[in-house]
Amino acid sequence: MHDGFGLSNLPYGSIRRDRASPPRLCVRLHDEAIELAAIAGDLDVDRALVDAPNLDRLLGAAPTAWTVLHEALRARLAEEVPAHARVPLAGAIPYLPFTVADYVDFYSSIEHATNLGRMFRPDAEPLLPNWRHVPVGYHGRSGTVVVAGTPIRRPVGQLPRPDGPTFAPTERLDIELELGFVTGGPPTSLGAPLPIDEAADRIFGFVLVNDWSARDIQRWEYVPLGPFLGKSFATSISAWVTPRDALEPYRVAGPEQQPPPLPYLRDPEPWGLDIALEVELGGETISRTNAAGLYWSVVQQLTHVASNGAVVRPGDLYASGTISGPASGSEGSLIELTQNGDRPLTIAGEERTFLLDGDRVVLRGRAGDVELGEVAGQIVSSEQPASSGR
Amino acid sequence: MHDGFGLSNLPYGSIRRDRASPPRLCVRLHDEAIELAAIAGDLDVDRALVDAPNLDRLLGAAPTAWTVLHEALRARLAEEVPAHARVPLAGAIPYLPFTVADYVDFYSSIEHATNLGRMFRPDAEPLLPNWRHVPVGYHGRSGTVVVAGTPIRRPVGQLPRPDGPTFAPTERLDIELELGFVTGGPPTSLGAPLPIDEAADRIFGFVLVNDWSARDIQRWEYVPLGPFLGKSFATSISAWVTPRDALEPYRVAGPEQQPPPLPYLRDPEPWGLDIALEVELGGETISRTNAAGLYWSVVQQLTHVASNGAVVRPGDLYASGTISGPASGSEGSLIELTQNGDRPLTIAGEERTFLLDGDRVVLRGRAGDVELGEVAGQIVSSEQPASSGR
Repeated sequence: MHDGFGLSNLPYGSIRRDRASPPRLCVRLHDEAIELAAIAGDLDVDRALVDAPNLDRLLGAAPTAWTVLHEALRARLAEEVPAHARVPLAGAIPYLPFTVADYVDFYSSIEHATNLGRMFRPDAEPLLPNWRHVPVGYHGRSGTVVVAGTPIRRPVGQLPRPDGPTFAPTERLDIELELGFVTGGPPTSLGAPLPIDEAADRIFGFVLVNDWSARDIQRWEYVPLGPFLGKSFATSISAWVTPRDALEPYRVAGPEQQPPPLPYLRDPEPWGLDIALEVELGGETISRTNAAGLYWSVVQQLTHVASNGAVVRPGDLYASGTISGPASGSEGSLIELTQNGDRPLTIAGEERTFLLDGDRVVLRGRAGDVELGEVAGQIVSSEQPASSGR
Repeated sequence: MHDGFGLSNLPYGSIRRDRASPPRLCVRLHDEAIELAAIAGDLDVDRALVDAPNLDRLLGAAPTAWTVLHEALRARLAEEVPAHARVPLAGAIPYLPFTVADYVDFYSSIEHATNLGRMFRPDAEPLLPNWRHVPVGYHGRSGTVVVAGTPIRRPVGQLPRPDGPTFAPTERLDIELELGFVTGGPPTSLGAPLPIDEAADRIFGFVLVNDWSARDIQRWEYVPLGPFLGKSFATSISAWVTPRDALEPYRVAGPEQQPPPLPYLRDPEPWGLDIALEVELGGETISRTNAAGLYWSVVQQLTHVASNGAVVRPGDLYASGTISGPASGSEGSLIELTQNGDRPLTIAGEERTFLLDGDRVVLRGRAGDVELGEVAGQIVSSEQPASSGR
């Protein structure tokens, strides 16, 4: 099988060749990173955009420059690349591919919203009245978005107990399988919405997202202002940002929306994305689903965010929310896969519910011959000393 | 009465002398801004910290440098300042004083939380069970934090109606009177909490915050993930950041906390702040309160944020949530002042509930002879063209 990192993909990342080298903007070609500064002279683009540590400058450029560069790279990398531009990925150190401006997390999977509703409000309609009208979302913490591979320290927080909260390491550490996108282009003007037919142009590319969640902290804190410390300890994203152009062939119609969305959210274009997704835990695949099932599309998400006049900046990260499918085994979180811990999974012969110290989770996504950058993360004990950051 | 901008204050701002000049880091002395680059040679500090467009570099420096600079400025500005360093504030253009990293909004006034609970859950305990244990908060949108004086365009959004939502300009545009602080120093390490006896050192200074709110958008969208587009259209902060050292004489004991907070939130130091606050609408003062009544202190807020290992960065903005007092006329929002619109205020002879186009709101705060930078904002119609951003 194709490794998914050929000329049709060419995702961008920020890579250090070794611990002594600074991060450089690269594209991935199979098992190598190509330093763009080293081939900038062969590309008909502004050198400053690619002779850079990461994607920040390119994200700030006009969207038309992205397609020009992607095309130029496809042509150039079909030819021989000099050895000094090539960095073997084995031994290279990935860095966060862009500086995260605002981070928004949506709740766009109807199956996920329904599953959680059934668990938490068993006597009521599982889907809340606003859900089919509003692409529900909230702002997350930009400062703790980390690159795939970063160890995740088990967070400590207030856990609910019958006689009042205790402050202890979370006992319900979970994953959330999500698809994210990063925006670019000049910032929108304060007060100026982004019409839905202009929103797609602002999407630079896509990453996988693991929105790590401490369910006990979250449950205790989240009423009435939403998730906070149950999520803000870490959010992992792919080291590689797959350009929008590479996923263009995999756009499909999304699910029918009933009732039809309000006019500002009606998209004339199909923006479902046929990306097969899977979650691996302890070396076993525990979930398989597809991003095409998301009820609210990426374009609807972005249009909604800007509809009140909020500024959309280069480097904003928007994540889908947990992606779950209708079938058993297609849920994107452990709380769903184990029915709130009541039905353990069997992994390597052991019954398992939430994450244990030492667990390694890997998220993967693939559209045809385009592989998204995987998101791996290993849980370390809350007793371990903290990492030195990104 | 002292104007509140003497040598005991010296707040920092980013000021353009005129439309042709770039923003420069200044301190305010009475009705002038003093460009720090112009007097840097007289100050025994790293020139790069003050020869800058705004506070970003100083926020990234070690907290000890802040006190050194503040003391040096007090000494230097007691003497004559050359004319070329002085910018009359009349005609000068304020800019956002620092780049906002993460923005967190708390809910720290027990009176505000109780008032809203009574309105929205009339048959239940007004205060939710978590409130006296957790400094409840959520992340807001950094990209739409704007400097005082920026016109606020009435946001459009989904408003609830009996037969389903409509997409229209908000009909319940409100203010929230808040006290904010900005953090500095090197970023904390991912996974490393900030013990409560180290948190205060991270607080660089204080601003007033108007967390503009569209109550109808907010009510429809906020379950279960919290406020989103009802808040993200604009948040205004003072053009001047009052250094922590200037407010040191106004630290007081906060309210008694019952039950006592969990040990990680127990502060050996008093961190209530005796700052008299007021809200002006249409030229009339409609609310008077004091920040000393806040249940959760600024130090408890920051300690809580970092307790799960989240990174605290220079430029993070933390706001208190609406500050309301126990007395009638001490509420920090129109929804409280008018009891959800049921009891209009009389302003200039007219009955008023929520904000109308053209309304001008000013927030003011003062501790002894230290005046905080006011936060003014005027509402413009959603029909007006959008501004060109900050």
